[in-house]
Amino acid sequence: MAYNLLQGKKGIIFGALDERSIAWKTALRCHEEGAQIVLSNAPVAMRMGEINKLAEAVNAPVIGADATSMEDLKKLFEGAMTHFGGGIDFVLHSIGMSLNVRKGKHYTEIDYAWNQKTLDISSMSLHRVLRTAWDLDAMNEWGSVVALTYIAAQRVFPDYNEMADAKSLLESVARSFGYHYAKRKKVRVNTISQSPTVTTAGSGVKGFDGFINYAEKMSPMGNATGDQCADYCVTMFSDLTRMVTMQNLFHDGGFSFTGVTPDVIEAMGK
Amino acid sequence: MAYNLLQGKKGIIFGALDERSIAWKTALRCHEEGAQIVLSNAPVAMRMGEINKLAEAVNAPVIGADATSMEDLKKLFEGAMTHFGGGIDFVLHSIGMSLNVRKGKHYTEIDYAWNQKTLDISSMSLHRVLRTAWDLDAMNEWGSVVALTYIAAQRVFPDYNEMADAKSLLESVARSFGYHYAKRKKVRVNTISQSPTVTTAGSGVKGFDGFINYAEKMSPMGNATGDQCADYCVTMFSDLTRMVTMQNLFHDGGFSFTGVTPDVIEAMGK
Amino acid sequence: MAYNLLQGKKGIIFGALDERSIAWKTALRCHEEGAQIVLSNAPVAMRMGEINKLAEAVNAPVIGADATSMEDLKKLFEGAMTHFGGGIDFVLHSIGMSLNVRKGKHYTEIDYAWNQKTLDISSMSLHRVLRTAWDLDAMNEWGSVVALTYIAAQRVFPDYNEMADAKSLLESVARSFGYHYAKRKKVRVNTISQSPTVTTAGSGVKGFDGFINYAEKMSPMGNATGDQCADYCVTMFSDLTRMVTMQNLFHDGGFSFTGVTPDVIEAMGK
Amino acid sequence: MAYNLLQGKKGIIFGALDERSIAWKTALRCHEEGAQIVLSNAPVAMRMGEINKLAEAVNAPVIGADATSMEDLKKLFEGAMTHFGGGIDFVLHSIGMSLNVRKGKHYTEIDYAWNQKTLDISSMSLHRVLRTAWDLDAMNEWGSVVALTYIAAQRVFPDYNEMADAKSLLESVARSFGYHYAKRKKVRVNTISQSPTVTTAGSGVKGFDGFINYAEKMSPMGNATGDQCADYCVTMFSDLTRMVTMQNLFHDGGFSFTGVTPDVIEAMGK
Repeated sequence: MAYNLLQGKKGIIFGALDERSIAWKTALRCHEEGAQIVLSNAPVAMRMGEINKLAEAVNAPVIGADATSMEDLKKLFEGAMTHFGGGIDFVLHSIGMSLNVRKGKHYTEIDYAWNQKTLDISSMSLHRVLRTAWDLDAMNEWGSVVALTYIAAQRVFPDYNEMADAKSLLESVARSFGYHYAKRKKVRVNTISQSPTVTTAGSGVKGFDGFINYAEKMSPMGNATGDQCADYCVTMFSDLTRMVTMQNLFHDGGFSFTGVTPDVIEAMGK
Repeated sequence: MAYNLLQGKKGIIFGALDERSIAWKTALRCHEEGAQIVLSNAPVAMRMGEINKLAEAVNAPVIGADATSMEDLKKLFEGAMTHFGGGIDFVLHSIGMSLNVRKGKHYTEIDYAWNQKTLDISSMSLHRVLRTAWDLDAMNEWGSVVALTYIAAQRVFPDYNEMADAKSLLESVARSFGYHYAKRKKVRVNTISQSPTVTTAGSGVKGFDGFINYAEKMSPMGNATGDQCADYCVTMFSDLTRMVTMQNLFHDGGFSFTGVTPDVIEAMGK
Repeated sequence: MAYNLLQGKKGIIFGALDERSIAWKTALRCHEEGAQIVLSNAPVAMRMGEINKLAEAVNAPVIGADATSMEDLKKLFEGAMTHFGGGIDFVLHSIGMSLNVRKGKHYTEIDYAWNQKTLDISSMSLHRVLRTAWDLDAMNEWGSVVALTYIAAQRVFPDYNEMADAKSLLESVARSFGYHYAKRKKVRVNTISQSPTVTTAGSGVKGFDGFINYAEKMSPMGNATGDQCADYCVTMFSDLTRMVTMQNLFHDGGFSFTGVTPDVIEAMGK
Repeated sequence: MAYNLLQGKKGIIFGALDERSIAWKTALRCHEEGAQIVLSNAPVAMRMGEINKLAEAVNAPVIGADATSMEDLKKLFEGAMTHFGGGIDFVLHSIGMSLNVRKGKHYTEIDYAWNQKTLDISSMSLHRVLRTAWDLDAMNEWGSVVALTYIAAQRVFPDYNEMADAKSLLESVARSFGYHYAKRKKVRVNTISQSPTVTTAGSGVKGFDGFINYAEKMSPMGNATGDQCADYCVTMFSDLTRMVTMQNLFHDGGFSFTGVTPDVIEAMGK
């Protein structure tokens, strides 16, 4: 069901790899709600994924950009503004990558050069995106920026490894830049802390299945799906949430405020 | 602007005293979004306020109820279900009262009998409302309950007095009951922690003007208005936020995550 | 091992029922560290427990007090000051009781009169204790008050029932009164959020064994013991923590900031 | 006054620049409490500062180390173990540096290469320190590691700039590594979030005086001093706090849980 919540709005969506991606689903939902979209992803992800299929479905140009390159980001924002014939109303940041996770390095044995890349790609990229918009004055007043994060930023999930630190840094960047963008132009910046979701990216994390199962049993509503996350993003891009900023918003079926459930205790007791 | 976000939904709204009330504004917005409404308030508040004016505007029956009376609440929910010809999709709890605040008692000198009333009216009333719905199985699946709260539940604002403790208790009740209602029927329960708002109720708090001014200067977007809060409530009642539960959601222009602003330091330096 | 950390200090310790009580262990440790002590408990708990054995061990008078009676508390504080020949340096509040838990009432079916007693005994008693000290100006400058709490105040542990709400209220009272006592006399008020501990009181909670086991597996250091909690209380009563106030301090082997452990996932997978 | 709280313990203290440094004061207090110490600092800081004066006072060798160099850190830990003739019981991490702050770059205009250095020096250095200890198995069982941080990790203080993000990352590293070290060897890792303190390092931050004044007025006990922080560090290094881990501990006179004070509102009203 669609409500025209984003009628007339223009947004950039980063990180749609394939149809399991939250960014993919969000692009579809924003399109349904009346938004115009520009898609972006890293060149390597674009080769691996199927973004063109999505581009067709939502009638959006794809402008590749390495989110750690100020030059690429500038081209992306300029291209988007040209395409839209004006400023940008919303941005979804769904970007993250950890070579240490991929290569199976234990947290106590991470490679520091790879860690630097992880922080640059997964966290500081949000600063770069916002700063590019800032420098070009690309965001319209009352714009909205959402970055996807995970509760490992608050509590340790050992297999999440260095991405926990990256998400903490990401959330801090959202607050810090959010402050300045609110003052300057009423642009809000928030993070959505989503249930573990079966995506192509997520499935790389070690022990992911056992973990998804645990989260499901620990969430009184069960895990939130990617589709539900897309719905939630739509509300955050709409005009109905204008005064919510610098927040980390849990979208997780109650996981974050549940200490234990009988399901977990029972499963352990077997 | 309206989106039909609540088309077909039915809700009970507590606490609309007069047109400055957040509950009043929320009732108007829910009506605009297509919801059917039943209004309720305490008998004494109904005599003082202008709820009938609102009832007319949103075409809603008014069913008075003392939120500390299980009998009154039962009548209200039964009356609402009869009126709607079915179950309830959303509830707004905007209920609070402190005799100790009204009578100017310092926090260190509160009357304990009055305090008991404060907790009963302002906090445990949420339990009573939810339990009434629970016993009658009155909520539809995927229903949504929102209670209004204030950041004094987390940090001390001395003039807020015992209402700070009442709001902490309220937020805990939201989590506790939210857990059970999620398990049973996917009903979510959240609190919205709103900027200080000039309402007839709020204006009773000592030093409120100086405080509103401080909050304005400490919020990068400025204080959120009651109208904006009503918009936010609409999103929480809609189907787009189904997996958000047991949360305390700050709707405050960034106040909650701002440590200090140049405006405050400058104002202090004069 | 003892360090004379509390040499010359005088304190009141509430809630030592028997030798498994954290209050009991704290009294022993404070005595070892050079403090003089007055013990107090509710009359009914004094009859059931073995407080006189402790009184002998730490050379302390016992002054019974119902912590919901201002009269009893006044007699206690006056008695303690007479005994000490002066003011009080520290207080341990280890008081809690829930008839709804004892009688096995589900959270959605609590008796509201009993709930009122729960909040009065378990939460507002801290206000009453502090206010009695305040009215008598009984605390010495830089005094320290600690109340024991549990993480159910932040996250739902379903079997903890209404005590979760009571602990939220307790923690709010600690912050609220802590603010005023800091301003007036540099007295600090904190709560310590302890691992689940096998005490005579705690063992009444339904499903406690499965739960202790879960907490043990979820805490990278394992659950903190009552003896370790006593040690921690000593540091909070000492002069080395003077600027820590209005805090909720987790003493739980890391449970509070652990999202999941391989032990839990493995135990679930069996 | 000394209690022999650290009798027989051995520790490494990073970051003592001059007698205003918190690390300097902590070294003095640890020495008074019976600990043996090895001092370390970055080569450049050693040239600027007066660490040799401290070394004499606490009878400690100084082993310079760039905290971003694994080689330097290895030499430091090996040197310390040789000096102590055994393992290490505690570590103080008081390391932070931001070229962007020093050069007056606004948060929206930071140099990303400098930012990378900031994160490496101020945050990931804690990982490197812990990992060096881990690889050499240098920490004794029940050891304790403390890193100094600031509340800007949670809320925006605009002049704190990118150091806010660095502190968020630091606190996450403390949690993440703390989890693993607890499991392996009962070593605890915490951060202490200290009031703004007039140190040679701190005084470089723009608008620091107005800010210290604000924090003083917002803290019911006033700002915590460096000496008081040293006292608190002693308790965290002692055997009395063994089950406190992965925590961020506010040592700030109540600032963190105070929403506003009459002093601030009054100062603003002038």
